[in-house]
Amino acid sequence: MSACPLCEGDGGLVVLRHEKFRVIRVQGAEAADFPAFYRVIWNGHVAEWSDLSDDDQALCMRAVSAVERAVRDAVQPRKINLAALGNMVPHLHWHVVARFDWDSRFPAPIWAAPVRPNDEARWNSVRQRLSACDAAIAALSLN
Amino acid sequence: MSACPLCEGDGGLVVLRHEKFRVIRVQGAEAADFPAFYRVIWNGHVAEWSDLSDDDQALCMRAVSAVERAVRDAVQPRKINLAALGNMVPHLHWHVVARFDWDSRFPAPIWAAPVRPNDEARWNSVRQRLSACDAAIAALSLN
Repeated sequence: MSACPLCEGDGGLVVLRHEKFRVIRVQGAEAADFPAFYRVIWNGHVAEWSDLSDDDQALCMRAVSAVERAVRDAVQPRKINLAALGNMVPHLHWHVVARFDWDSRFPAPIWAAPVRPNDEARWNSVRQRLSACDAAIAALSLN
Repeated sequence: MSACPLCEGDGGLVVLRHEKFRVIRVQGAEAADFPAFYRVIWNGHVAEWSDLSDDDQALCMRAVSAVERAVRDAVQPRKINLAALGNMVPHLHWHVVARFDWDSRFPAPIWAAPVRPNDEARWNSVRQRLSACDAAIAALSLN
């Protein structure tokens, strides 16, 4: 009955499953431009952050923060970008994106137009660290 | 000695001052396109979310959530967008933006190219509710 893609499917490569949320690594076209791109997806169909209870907000944000820390440790980005937008898919999900000053949009948001081509050699170096990053996220204990 | 604009100035119209953060309403060109646009700006010069202590994260996110709720109540947007990017100004600040399905970028992020002109009549209707929204935020008790 649901037309929500985040109710119907995982929404990416699942690296951590929790009773209340999952952490996925983004696949496909978005990952081609930004390979170190994870999402913390709340399992329940909730649109807005302020619809969550205080306890659920705290749990979800502990997950976002821990994923951010794992990404920082694994790929040492110039900056982390966090966002919960949901205009297209109004099911709560947090983007956690590693940015580099040489990436195709920096310093603009990833949703802006590219300002330079992808540097595939540098991205390949980042990609080599993603399995370690996935493993660090998979090992998180979040309650 | 600081070249950081969020250390040097408030960064907008201050609607709430807390010892550890402030809430501002965005002014200028960004507000022309998105008038119901607030920021929760951490007062300390911290770049990344995961640099904050657990207690400070909890306080900051209570503020973000309360501002989101005040904006939802005041202007009844189609969606709220939350983001902490900081590529240009790496000093922790959370964007809280009210989105409408008739706004110039919807459903794309506000940083994407416009897909339609601003509807000034509808924005003026939103603008009339901003002083009430400011007052609701100013009255928040966050500890």
